[in-house]
Amino acid sequence: MSHVDESYLVGLIGDGITASLSPPMHEQEAREHGLLYLYRPVDTAALGLRDEEAQAAAPRLLAAGRELGFNAFNITHPFKQTIMEHLDEVDEDARNLGAVNTVVFRDGRSVGYNTDFSGYITGLQTTMAEPDLSQVVQLGAGGAGSAIAYALLRAGARRLTLMDLDLDRATARAAALQDQFPDQTVAARPHAELQEALVTATGLAHCTPVGMNGHPGMPVEAAWLRPEMWVSEVVYLPVETELVVAARAAGCAVVDGGRMAVGQALDAFGLITGRQADPERVRRHFLDLVARNQG
Amino acid sequence: MSHVDESYLVGLIGDGITASLSPPMHEQEAREHGLLYLYRPVDTAALGLRDEEAQAAAPRLLAAGRELGFNAFNITHPFKQTIMEHLDEVDEDARNLGAVNTVVFRDGRSVGYNTDFSGYITGLQTTMAEPDLSQVVQLGAGGAGSAIAYALLRAGARRLTLMDLDLDRATARAAALQDQFPDQTVAARPHAELQEALVTATGLAHCTPVGMNGHPGMPVEAAWLRPEMWVSEVVYLPVETELVVAARAAGCAVVDGGRMAVGQALDAFGLITGRQADPERVRRHFLDLVARNQG
Repeated sequence: MSHVDESYLVGLIGDGITASLSPPMHEQEAREHGLLYLYRPVDTAALGLRDEEAQAAAPRLLAAGRELGFNAFNITHPFKQTIMEHLDEVDEDARNLGAVNTVVFRDGRSVGYNTDFSGYITGLQTTMAEPDLSQVVQLGAGGAGSAIAYALLRAGARRLTLMDLDLDRATARAAALQDQFPDQTVAARPHAELQEALVTATGLAHCTPVGMNGHPGMPVEAAWLRPEMWVSEVVYLPVETELVVAARAAGCAVVDGGRMAVGQALDAFGLITGRQADPERVRRHFLDLVARNQG
Repeated sequence: MSHVDESYLVGLIGDGITASLSPPMHEQEAREHGLLYLYRPVDTAALGLRDEEAQAAAPRLLAAGRELGFNAFNITHPFKQTIMEHLDEVDEDARNLGAVNTVVFRDGRSVGYNTDFSGYITGLQTTMAEPDLSQVVQLGAGGAGSAIAYALLRAGARRLTLMDLDLDRATARAAALQDQFPDQTVAARPHAELQEALVTATGLAHCTPVGMNGHPGMPVEAAWLRPEMWVSEVVYLPVETELVVAARAAGCAVVDGGRMAVGQALDAFGLITGRQADPERVRRHFLDLVARNQG
């Protein structure tokens, strides 16, 4: 009959996020910890806000949330970059990355973090004790790709090759990362050289939408996958993409897209509550939610 | 392992309400119903807002709360009157009373209610099956007094006598209520006539701060209390005021201040969730919270 004194109110600010799996993931894990934890999606699209109007609304909603007793927010597309200037403090990795996906209100200050990159590392390390990061090929240098490239370098990748259909984007991103990680090697190569690049790769990080619901297909030829390589997938709807299935068939260690999705939630939960979420429990719940959404 | 789909986020907007018992009362009862229910106090004083600044903030916080996924707000001093013009709809009783203490967001609209008055009636009827309302004397015509006078008339009081150290306030209030309830009798009398008024009273509604922590004392002489009268108390910190103790000793039916406090919470909980809170369970929890606060 006693009152739970430890309660958390968390929001997710983003455009078109009504179907996000973060609310049930966080709430379910919190319940396992005996916490009173409410996670509300705040969808700017559902609020009828677009473009500049939405960009102006995001910091206003964040500030109001703090006044209204929110403990934290997750931030997602298209506010991860623009929210940064409205925070009292930004963690060093998030600053280097130029993107915040978690804001925690602590001691009267708003502090920004990025658990996309850390969640990717968590997912990688959950799958393999010692992923070979000596020669990593990354396909896709967009938003998710930026966080993953940063994660790979942060986790110690010796050589990272960025490939993208937009070579200029890959080149610009590689140059910026090379500045941030001067002791490692970051280079861009034309997409046409993908097959060749994979010959010597110790790992392939896939970071494009190919394979997700509505975008079926394979980003690489199955024949290019070798059992010595690990393969990570960013797509998680579905979890079993053609790439994941092919990589597993080829004998690769496979980090599916659910690992990163779960990893960012695990890390956000830890920042918000100071408690360690159970990776396998959250993963089971995530897969259960995805299965229900697909059904 | 299944996710709770029915969740509620509720706030309380008021000045100096950090110690309010509403959050634990609501959250505890909701837990008994298996609901995920978070109730956040939003204290304008704690936010550093005062006077006009606070008055301007209250509707802004309400609007932001709606965007951020709040289902409802309780509203308390000093915003019960001023919030009304910012609502899409106001329930008839709340409109007559000129005060809203509960705002529910429903079908995209904000609807205002008053559960102070209804909670008083609930408390009265929980204590007595058929309270004799033929000749009621009410002492105190301030904010709480207004809701209680309205409640008494709404519950069918045939004759209501308002007494206040400020006779003008009592007179103005009586005139306004007389207009609203033309078939009943509402009159003001000077405070000096209290003893005389009680001689024929069937009930005494006490609505001043006398007897609360920091304001010890008795609003009437114990000798004026007769066993045929019921006595209701508005003060609930402590629940056992000198008046409550004396009235019980005199053999009166006694409605202590906890009844109204619990009643307004029961009614708000019902409006917010569509579920019937358990009056005796909430009362036990309330008394437990008060005992802990006093300790």
